[in-house]
Parts: sequence; C-alpha cells; structure tokens
Amino acid sequence: MRIIKDSTPGRDGFRMPAEFEPHEGCIMIFPERPDSWQYGGYAARKAFVQIAEAIALSEKVTVCAGAAQYDNARALLPPHIRVVEMSSNDAWARDYCPTFVKNGEGSVRGIDWGFNAWGGLHNGLYFPWDRDNQMARKLCDLFEKDVYCKRDFILEGGSVHVDGEGTCMVTEECLLSKGRNPQMTKGEIEETLKEYLNVSTVLWLPCGIYNDETDGHVDNICAFTAPGEAVLAWTEDKEDVQYEMSRACLACLEQAVDARGRHIRVHKLPLPKPVRITEEECQGLDACGDEPVRTPGERLAASYVNFYIANGNIVMPGFGDAADAQAKEILQGLFPDRRVIQIYTRDILIGGGNIHCITQQIPGAAR
Amino acid sequence: MRIIKDSTPGRDGFRMPAEFEPHEGCIMIFPERPDSWQYGGYAARKAFVQIAEAIALSEKVTVCAGAAQYDNARALLPPHIRVVEMSSNDAWARDYCPTFVKNGEGSVRGIDWGFNAWGGLHNGLYFPWDRDNQMARKLCDLFEKDVYCKRDFILEGGSVHVDGEGTCMVTEECLLSKGRNPQMTKGEIEETLKEYLNVSTVLWLPCGIYNDETDGHVDNICAFTAPGEAVLAWTEDKEDVQYEMSRACLACLEQAVDARGRHIRVHKLPLPKPVRITEEECQGLDACGDEPVRTPGERLAASYVNFYIANGNIVMPGFGDAADAQAKEILQGLFPDRRVIQIYTRDILIGGGNIHCITQQIPGAAR
Repeated sequence: MRIIKDSTPGRDGFRMPAEFEPHEGCIMIFPERPDSWQYGGYAARKAFVQIAEAIALSEKVTVCAGAAQYDNARALLPPHIRVVEMSSNDAWARDYCPTFVKNGEGSVRGIDWGFNAWGGLHNGLYFPWDRDNQMARKLCDLFEKDVYCKRDFILEGGSVHVDGEGTCMVTEECLLSKGRNPQMTKGEIEETLKEYLNVSTVLWLPCGIYNDETDGHVDNICAFTAPGEAVLAWTEDKEDVQYEMSRACLACLEQAVDARGRHIRVHKLPLPKPVRITEEECQGLDACGDEPVRTPGERLAASYVNFYIANGNIVMPGFGDAADAQAKEILQGLFPDRRVIQIYTRDILIGGGNIHCITQQIPGAAR
Repeated sequence: MRIIKDSTPGRDGFRMPAEFEPHEGCIMIFPERPDSWQYGGYAARKAFVQIAEAIALSEKVTVCAGAAQYDNARALLPPHIRVVEMSSNDAWARDYCPTFVKNGEGSVRGIDWGFNAWGGLHNGLYFPWDRDNQMARKLCDLFEKDVYCKRDFILEGGSVHVDGEGTCMVTEECLLSKGRNPQMTKGEIEETLKEYLNVSTVLWLPCGIYNDETDGHVDNICAFTAPGEAVLAWTEDKEDVQYEMSRACLACLEQAVDARGRHIRVHKLPLPKPVRITEEECQGLDACGDEPVRTPGERLAASYVNFYIANGNIVMPGFGDAADAQAKEILQGLFPDRRVIQIYTRDILIGGGNIHCITQQIPGAAR
C-alpha cells in the first residue's frame, strides 16, 4: 500500500462513486464496547450479524473484529462472511473506514481522513480514538489499495453523501462544528471536499436529525437514491422539534442545483414516532469516563434514511413503528431493482447510529 | 472460511506441496516481545525487514503486526509488502501459521494444528500461547481459504518437511516429545501425518540441532532441496556434541527409501562454529516469567539449513562465520534457478530460530 501525501484524488482523476454504483464489497466492524452497546452488546451483535447476512446476499462482506471478539464473531457469522482481526475503539465503519475513490479504469484508492470521535476534545463522544483513526489505513493495506493521507482534515464518512455525478451533500451543523476543522473557513472546507471527493458542487443542508450526537450527519437525514433524486427524513407533526429542521433542509434542497444543473427531486421518507431510551436500557450501558452515556427518556435519532445500498439489496432499519411498512414501500419504489430488507435495529440505534453508520462500501466490479 | 471438522486433506485429495513448488506468497509476523528479541527487538525487526524484502523480490509478502507495532511495521516495510494487524504471542510464522495443502485443481486449504508453545505445560517456552494458536484460522479467513480443524493434534510447521511426492521428514526428538502428543503412539502420530499431509512415507530422523529449544525441529537440521535430495547440517569436529547427532541423522537418511522408492541423496551443509550468546546480549532480554530466557555463553542452535525457498530466491542465514560463503555456494549449486541471498541473522538466532522459522509459504500460482 502506497501512502499518497503529495497528490489528491481530484488531481489524479479519482472520484467518490455514489453508493448505488457497483460494489466490490462491504466492510463492517463487530460491536464490543459496553458503554456503547447495552448489556454487553449481545443484542447489538445479533443485529449486526443479521445486517451482514442481508448485505452478503449480494456482495462480499468483511467484518473486522477485535482480538477479544474474533472467535465469537467467527462463530456467529456464516462462513461466506470473512472475519479479520482489527482493533478499533468502536464499530462505526461508515465514519472511519476509508472513503474509497475510483478512476476511469476502475482502479480504487482510499482516503484516510482524520477522525476525532465526532468532535475531539470539544465534544467528542469517547476518548481515545486512536485505533479508529488507524483503521482507514489498515483497511487500505488489507484490500491492497493505495491511500490518500488527509489526516489533517477531520471528516467522518457519514457526514458526506455524493451522487457520483459531481455533487456532494453535507450539513452545516456537522462540517462547521467547532469539533471538526475550526481553523478552516466554510469555503476552505468546501474546496477540500471538492478536491478529495472530486465533485464540483457541495450542497450545504443546515442540519441533521434532532439530538443526533454526530452533530447532524447528513446520512441520517438525507440520501441520494439516484442522480438528481434524494430521500429526506420527514414529519408532519408541527409539535415535533424535527419539523422545522426537516423543512429547512427541504427548502435548501428545493432551491439547489446540482453539478449537472438539475433540481433535486425530493422524496419525503416519514420518520417513526419519537423513539426514547428506557430506564432499563440505560442501566445496561456502562459509564463512559465520568458520565452516563444516556439518560432515561432521552430521544434517539431514529431515521429510516440510515439505510445501506448493497449491489442487489437495500438494507434498512425498522423500529417496530407504524411507519416501518410505509418507509419500506417508499424505498422499494425508489429502488425497483433491489429487494428491500428491513431489520429491527433498536439495539443499534441505542448505540448511536444505524445501518448506514455501521457499513462502508468498497466500490469496484461486483464479485 | 469454512471450518472443516468432518474430513481430512487425505480424504479430500489435498496434499502439502514441497516448499520448492510455486507460492502464492509468504506470511511473516513482526517481532515484538522483549523476552524473545533483545533490546526491545530493534535489531530483530531490521533483520525481519531485510528478509521480507528479499522474499518480496519474487513473491507477495504479508506481514502480520500486533496493534502496538502496526504503524511501525508500516513505516519500516516498503509499500509493496502488505501489513495486516493480527495479535500473536510471538513471531514464529512457520510454527503456527497454517500448513497449506493443495488439490489437483490448484485449490488451497489450510490446516489449523494445535499449538502449545513447543511443549505446553511440560516444557513450553512461554505462557500463554492463545493468540498464536488462533493465527492459523485467522490467516485462512484472511486469505479466504477453507481450513481443516486439527487442534487436538499438537504440531508446529517447523517440525515437518515434505518433498511434495509423498514423503515427510520429522524428528523423533520433537514429535515423540512429552510436550506434544504423549497420549498417542508413534504409529498413531505417523498415521495422522499421513492423513493430513497426504503422504505415504514418514522418515523419522532421531534428532535435530543441539540445544534447539524446539525439541529438535527438523527444519533446522535437514531440508528437502528437490524430490529425493536433501541438505543435512554437518560438522567434521568430533569434539562437537553435534557430531554424533548429525551422523545419526545421516545414517538414518542413508538407509531410508522415500515414497517413490528412491534413496535420498544427502548434501552435507557445514555448520558454523558454535555460536554462543554474550553477556551483553543476555542483558537485553527481559525475563520470561520467573526465569531468565538465556544465560551467557549458552550455545545457540545456529544452522544454515534454516533457509526459505521463495519463488525466485533462496533466503538463507549468515552468522559472520568462515563457513557462511561455503554454505551459500552449496545452496546456490543445489538451486541453480534461484539466486541465493544471505542475510546476517544473529539477532533472529538469539530469539530462538532463523529464517525458515519466521516464514510460511502459501502454495499456489505465483503472482
């Protein structure tokens, strides 16, 4: 693996493909830490296994497991899913596994962004985050891809979406947060995204989902489903604090023009009714440093937008909510060539994210 | 990766190829533990890097590094050598990375033998050895090879050599040691080797090199260089305790008939003059449990037989001894199509082995 410090994807003709373009495979990380995953992670691991199996129906899946969980991961996952040992601080593959870029000949490289646990010493969620931060490079080495080193720029994979045709989508709430790159102007951040993702247009949504501890990652509120088309997490409940947030994003999208000069066609994806963590669930979470991770009744950032697009399937969350079926139907309509699989993910949501957050695609020829 | 518990390589038509058959690549482990590698392993790591680079001249090399050494391994090794994170108890790839077997269609599988640190609670060299014992399976998973599970049989890769044509070579000193499979008869051990390596003849040499703490691994005293041909570590010094040991092995080889009905042509490979560890070197070794690992003046099991056969090179040890050049010349004569590269390996010898001990080939099409 060559570590590239003297060039950029833009300069070398590599671009980040959209998630709906073909994948070589998918990376996940086996969940372990007891202050993220309630009651020792047993339920979370079951959900991760279900998700890995659903993705593996149509693409290769590699699951990274820490040394202590390797045997268990191997036992719980089916033989066609590869398990590799790799240390990490937690299990958010989207945010610190490499962002992959591809050139016209199909060659793939990784980007190794800086990672600081969603805010570093400002408002990061745990300390330390050194093992997470090493993963992008380790995975490029494992998959034999050269890697662009951009550790001086803090970015999580879940904070950007691209349409594969020159447009990137982010939220101001996240990318302009003090915990990311406070020394840079918005313009400088935008230029960095353009250079590394090789896009010409950056759409800045104002915010993400209410109480999303990632500082409002775009991948929980809005996602491209095709070039020029996106789903947006939506509620009609004017009493819900999310109402104005989603409306503000819609307003932004409605006036946006993408890199190809298109207006974005927005499909509203209903939100489930507010999901709150119970006292019993809180009791199953170890303390993180001096503080409890969550408090009973706290609202979790549940959203159906947090789905993964596999080569042949959509793998989406379910919350046991009346809106589950409706959200599934909408996504199935938007992805007619992929069967939508809905998995009950409350145990992942409690950890702080959902299916998109725990997966990272490797673009390439499907195999 | 499928874990195969209900069949054997013999039954499935898989056999262990000779080391001089083509390789897909080579596995090594980055040295780290301070009771094996003097003065924190700095010199040993330099030698490992040289060896990896020499092997990588003609085949792919993957180096496994523990989490603490990953960044350092990546920095010290050139980009064309892959580094993967993997925990281990030490760095003896030969002994606990998988033994690979191959079938007529070129399909490759691994064998996951039991490993107990060269003698377990009887006379093992360190405790615990759990991470070493997990490596075979992890590596098969990494390389996407199915694996035969044979953990109930204790065997190190360095204790067997095969000619690829039905003959296996071992030492009684090692395979009949109380620290291996004391519940089995010699006949049962031989049957197990025949079934798993898919050989029909097992040659039992009496012993290995004097003071070899592996209980006399065959790979330090004798190696096949071609079907029907072997090198044997040799001394003409009758005062040397090794004299009678090598003579006993020669006598055994001279009366042996291999699986194809051939007598073995034996090439004597001179031993260097006895190599002894110095007081200064001993001071650079951390204690292992309650005991010092080595004592000043202790004789080390130096032998030129401990070389690695890469696709296009022979990588062999040197000790700064007068016999270095002679041994190199003999090996060059035996392997006319492979350039012999000699590397000064005193720092590896102090750890307890040499180049063959720290490498494991993956048979397959050279790539």
